[in-house]
Formats: sequence, structure tokens, C-alpha cells
Amino acid sequence: MSVFIGGTTSLLARTPELLRTLLIGLPEGWTDTTDVPANGWRPRDVVGHLITGELTDWIERTQRILEHGTAVPFDKFDRFAHADRDTDATLDELVEHFARLRAENLARLADLVTDGDLDRRGMHPSLGEVTLRELLATWAVHDLDHVSQIFAGMAGSHDAEVGPWKAYLGILLRREDPSATPG
Amino acid sequence: MSVFIGGTTSLLARTPELLRTLLIGLPEGWTDTTDVPANGWRPRDVVGHLITGELTDWIERTQRILEHGTAVPFDKFDRFAHADRDTDATLDELVEHFARLRAENLARLADLVTDGDLDRRGMHPSLGEVTLRELLATWAVHDLDHVSQIFAGMAGSHDAEVGPWKAYLGILLRREDPSATPG
Repeated sequence: MSVFIGGTTSLLARTPELLRTLLIGLPEGWTDTTDVPANGWRPRDVVGHLITGELTDWIERTQRILEHGTAVPFDKFDRFAHADRDTDATLDELVEHFARLRAENLARLADLVTDGDLDRRGMHPSLGEVTLRELLATWAVHDLDHVSQIFAGMAGSHDAEVGPWKAYLGILLRREDPSATPG
Repeated sequence: MSVFIGGTTSLLARTPELLRTLLIGLPEGWTDTTDVPANGWRPRDVVGHLITGELTDWIERTQRILEHGTAVPFDKFDRFAHADRDTDATLDELVEHFARLRAENLARLADLVTDGDLDRRGMHPSLGEVTLRELLATWAVHDLDHVSQIFAGMAGSHDAEVGPWKAYLGILLRREDPSATPG
């Protein structure tokens, strides 16, 4: 296994346990707030979005590249599929659902992809030609992007509690003004 | 124990395991990049800063409030103490050092503070009067703020690998332009 596949897989395998450690059993007062005040996502929305990625995106696109190259573009990614799908699930249930799907998909990845495949190309419906290496790197960075969003929502849930210290807490200031710098 | 102290402690107790899950044994290619390109912090700098907080800030200030109220201002927090102190430690060692200090400090907190103390006041050297409740909330949100910084550095380490997908990854775009919005 290449350094690239090994490192990327190592990161991807950590996200379920990270979400468990962060969220399972945490009092709801920390998890009911969105990352940004307007049209933001709560932690449960973010986990739902990660579930959609496991169900419809990363491994499906990997298979599309291996089977069809650039001849058949990827299906579009529905960024809001979680909204209707997950209404009856608790946050803890969503985290465990994500963990199961991620484990299955990493097993599929290990079966499907070897070093020699990383430069194979697929067709993104908006971005054009991309490589399998770029897809896998994006899978991992997408995790980091969205877990950060969970942190912003959790911080936002205690915006009123920190008092004057808010001036030093970039994670709170940026929820209201993305270019704010802590004092 | 109040809902506030219980919830805040629950969050604070999770951070060491979170950092272990995220960082221990991760290939260095994910952990050698700063959160922002200019004057940013690598994950090891962030963990060092969290160590400084455990050594000199949160519990020390809690005791200052309980012993002296607003009569003796807090000592200033040295945001760069880690730079000289931690040069010989590996990232994994820093994470374990932080975990030990956090466990000790949460044990001290449980001995020191009860619900009735939360409205007691102290004197911040720059911000003026603050409450113990605000100090404890800030301790937890400060964790979230800085762990987010670790995520930004880790994402940044793979900036070049995601190819055209960068346009969709806010965590990468914001490293260069804080007000950037993913397309």
C-alpha cells in the first residue's frame, strides 16, 4: 500500500471514533446549535451529510472511475439528502450509522484500489476531469471540513456563556463575521 | 452537580481522547502544516498551547477567584510559552502530557467548585470583571477553538492533493481568505 493510500485511509478510519468521542452522550445543550446563525447545520445535520457521502459519493465515484474512467460522469452529490432521511434518528444513532458505513467503505476501498489506480481519471459533473488520488484526498479533507463545522456549532451553543472572553475566541467571532480576528 | 458544571466537564474530559484519536500515530504528512500559511500553528503548537492552559491558566484562575475574588487580577496568559518549552517532545508525547494534566485539573475542579461558586467574580487583566461560570465556559470553548485549528492545519497539509475540489472545501479556502465561501 502506498504512503498516500495508507495515510489517507488512516485519517478516514479515525473519523467515526472521533465523532463518538466528541458526541455520544454529550448533553443536548452542546449539540442543538448550528455552525453559523443563518442556514447553518447542527452536529446532527453534519453527521447526516457525512452519511450521504458514504452512501452515494466516495466509493460510488471510486467505482465509477475504475469502471468507466471519464466516459460516464459522476452522479451529482445531494448536499441536503439528510434533511428528510434522518428526522427520526437520534444524534447517537446517526454517529453509529456513519461508523458502520465508513467501516464498510474502507473495506471496499482496500479491495478496489491499488497504487497503480491513483492516476486514473473520472469526470466530475461540474469540475471536469479529476483523478482518483484527488477523490481520495478530498474524501479525507471533507471529513476535516465538516467535523470543524461540528466544533463551530458546539462553540456557538455556549456563545452567551463565555462573557467578555468572546473577544478572544475566533471560533465564536467567525460565526458572525468570517473575517473577524480575535483580539 | 449542576447541569452547567456537568456539561462543561463532560466536554473538557473528551478533549484528550479526541486528540489521541485524531493524532497518535498519524503519518507526519498530515501533521506538519500550520492552520494558516503565515504565522500559523502546527498541531504540535496547538497541543503545546493547550498544555500551557492546563499548567498556568484555567485552574490557577479558578483558585484565584475562589481565594481573592476581584482583589487580585489573574496572571497574564503566555500564548507562546510552548515555543521554547516543547521543542524536544514528539507530538504523541505532547498529547499524552496534555491528557495527564487535563485529568488532574478536572479532579481539582471537582474538589474546588460547586454550583454556588459559579457567580463568583474575578479580575481579568485586560477584560475586567468576569465570573467563574464564564471562565469554565471559556475553558471548554477554547478547546473547541484550538482543536478546530488542528483540523485546519491537517486539511492544509493536503491542499495540493485535492485538485479542483478545493473550490468546494471551505476549510482550505479560508486558510488563504477568511471570508471565502465554497462554490
